[in-house]
Amino acid sequence: MADRDRQVTPSFVLVTGNPGKLAEAVRILGAPVDSIAIDLPEIQSLDLRAVLEAKADEAWRRVGRPLVVEEAGLELAALNGFPGPLVKWMLDAAGPAGLARTALALANPRATARCLLLYTDGDRRVAGEGVTTGTLVLPPRGEHGFGWDPVFRPDGEERTFGELEGPAKDAVSHRGRAWRDLMARW
Amino acid sequence: MADRDRQVTPSFVLVTGNPGKLAEAVRILGAPVDSIAIDLPEIQSLDLRAVLEAKADEAWRRVGRPLVVEEAGLELAALNGFPGPLVKWMLDAAGPAGLARTALALANPRATARCLLLYTDGDRRVAGEGVTTGTLVLPPRGEHGFGWDPVFRPDGEERTFGELEGPAKDAVSHRGRAWRDLMARW
Repeated sequence: MADRDRQVTPSFVLVTGNPGKLAEAVRILGAPVDSIAIDLPEIQSLDLRAVLEAKADEAWRRVGRPLVVEEAGLELAALNGFPGPLVKWMLDAAGPAGLARTALALANPRATARCLLLYTDGDRRVAGEGVTTGTLVLPPRGEHGFGWDPVFRPDGEERTFGELEGPAKDAVSHRGRAWRDLMARW
Repeated sequence: MADRDRQVTPSFVLVTGNPGKLAEAVRILGAPVDSIAIDLPEIQSLDLRAVLEAKADEAWRRVGRPLVVEEAGLELAALNGFPGPLVKWMLDAAGPAGLARTALALANPRATARCLLLYTDGDRRVAGEGVTTGTLVLPPRGEHGFGWDPVFRPDGEERTFGELEGPAKDAVSHRGRAWRDLMARW
């Protein structure tokens, strides 16, 4: 316990079944991250925070020790913020190219990537948020990352998330910002 | 109990907070329908049946008497079936016109409307399904119905769901077909 208390990174288990998200957490925190892959049902909502709060409740019931849950969304300006947290389903159905094609066909390629992290120990909750604005582009570019990374070019960058090597992505990504925000609020 | 057993329409409470869905059930069944408006969280999935099964479980826990839950989706061919059961969120964000504009911008206005009904008495389950194929059109037309009715023109009709008077809509609608299917399987 003494060793644990001396760690800079607080002790928690990251609840995710997504290897890409786990890899990014390890890279961003610069420390090993304990993780558990459980398939948590997620409620339907466009409110990222509501989805995450419900997920944290369910995760706490199942895991019963300090944990962090994560939720990310991509808000298309062309669809007034849709699909947001539901983007994973749009990806499943239409792929990253389908996502970008939709925005471009609607003549507005602007998008906002948002990541929320929520720590809970059953008592205290701490949230971290990261937001990155950018543009959806075609064709998909780059071999890094996952999900819609190959079609999202963050503002101020020439390259897509898929073309940015890990630390370069973390510096500007919604997930990098969310982890740094969470750690700052610890 | 004897009177109840003699009823043609089986006894159940329809769990819905949507007045449009309740009105259609009453019209299609041609009988009063007991209803209860509880806000059931819905799980994220493109699988209508999975969403509905989870909803039935939760409804049974809360209501504890024979009930019917309903779930409908609109599958855009242009997005390989997305948003399906998640269409309500796309409607919330972009409206019926935004939905149709997306399909038209992607140069494929074909869509499939699907409705699933699930009866449960805590023991037996009976499901009914109705499917209606059609085309998304702009501008929105008609004052009837609700949701995306004004932009959906079912195959074989010149008019949108929004232009069809109640019984005319029920004859061809996914929801009309689902109720008739459920009653046939009773």
